[in-house]
Amino acid sequence: MNIDPIDKLTAYFMRLPGVGKKTASRYAYNVLKLDEKVVEEFADAMVTAKKTVHHCRVCGHYTDGEVCSICETRDKSVILVVKEPKDVYAFERLKDYNGVYHVLHGTLDPMNGVGVNDLNIKSLLARLDGVKEVVMATNPDVEGEATAMYIASLLKPFDVKVSRLAHGIPIGQEIEFADEVTLSRALTERKDI
Amino acid sequence: MNIDPIDKLTAYFMRLPGVGKKTASRYAYNVLKLDEKVVEEFADAMVTAKKTVHHCRVCGHYTDGEVCSICETRDKSVILVVKEPKDVYAFERLKDYNGVYHVLHGTLDPMNGVGVNDLNIKSLLARLDGVKEVVMATNPDVEGEATAMYIASLLKPFDVKVSRLAHGIPIGQEIEFADEVTLSRALTERKDI
Repeated sequence: MNIDPIDKLTAYFMRLPGVGKKTASRYAYNVLKLDEKVVEEFADAMVTAKKTVHHCRVCGHYTDGEVCSICETRDKSVILVVKEPKDVYAFERLKDYNGVYHVLHGTLDPMNGVGVNDLNIKSLLARLDGVKEVVMATNPDVEGEATAMYIASLLKPFDVKVSRLAHGIPIGQEIEFADEVTLSRALTERKDI
Repeated sequence: MNIDPIDKLTAYFMRLPGVGKKTASRYAYNVLKLDEKVVEEFADAMVTAKKTVHHCRVCGHYTDGEVCSICETRDKSVILVVKEPKDVYAFERLKDYNGVYHVLHGTLDPMNGVGVNDLNIKSLLARLDGVKEVVMATNPDVEGEATAMYIASLLKPFDVKVSRLAHGIPIGQEIEFADEVTLSRALTERKDI
């Protein structure tokens, strides 16, 4: 009853995020319905993306060149430090940030063996020439905060302003429904009006 | 900002069922995180499945041989006629059907230009030797019913019993929540007890 090539393809689809056996098998059967030429191009696009896309030599974001287009064209005096490439896309969607990025590719997590040398941190210190401000934009969780604090301490000796994203009540959310940590943070970081 | 190889791969992932731009892009970025060897094997599995899996010469179900394992090993006196290979899997999960299948690969849909010659119908007539019963198991929608009726009419001249799946209230559903069509059908097809 089982057909080996389909089972094998299903197993590979299951390596994609959030794809269980049922979805993977649906994807596999759907591949069979595509034209052979399309399937070959799909497979080729996969290998090509993996082979040609790598990390920008300057900021660590994805690029198929040596230096990414953001590093090449934008204001280099402000660097926004993020955990992952997908965070870059989140800020790029805003269309009102004109600085550059630095992608860490993870956060410090000693419990799981992720140390300073496993992240793209050292290269940040090598690009501070002409930089006025470094904005820490790691996630507001334990690892993200610890990583931000650690990088801030590394930046201390340099003549550069270090800031981090504001945390507080999300716009549009009613205070009643804000979680306690956020609410407490919003109170501590209250601003004069 | 856009990276061509990623956009291209994203576009291919969007050809899978139920995959929108956001999910496709997540898949594409995840491919970048896999080992190059894994990506190559994934791509290869895709092309191999497409090239080696085809329709069983007898029943039309997927197989990587000439005749599928179901046709080779099971009781050939009962044929269950289904729309698609995934319907075969639905019945196989039951584990209590020991007959064979006939996969139509679609249903008659003249409005969208799907006629008799576009489906795997004629080969059904060629395999009736020794068959006692043909069970129509197309979906209970307009196209499915019409297709079942058409095939039943083709089978009339042959000495073979033609039946179809029972329709009615699903087991476990409360009558209150049954849709009107199902309820009306359940009433019309009521059985003596």
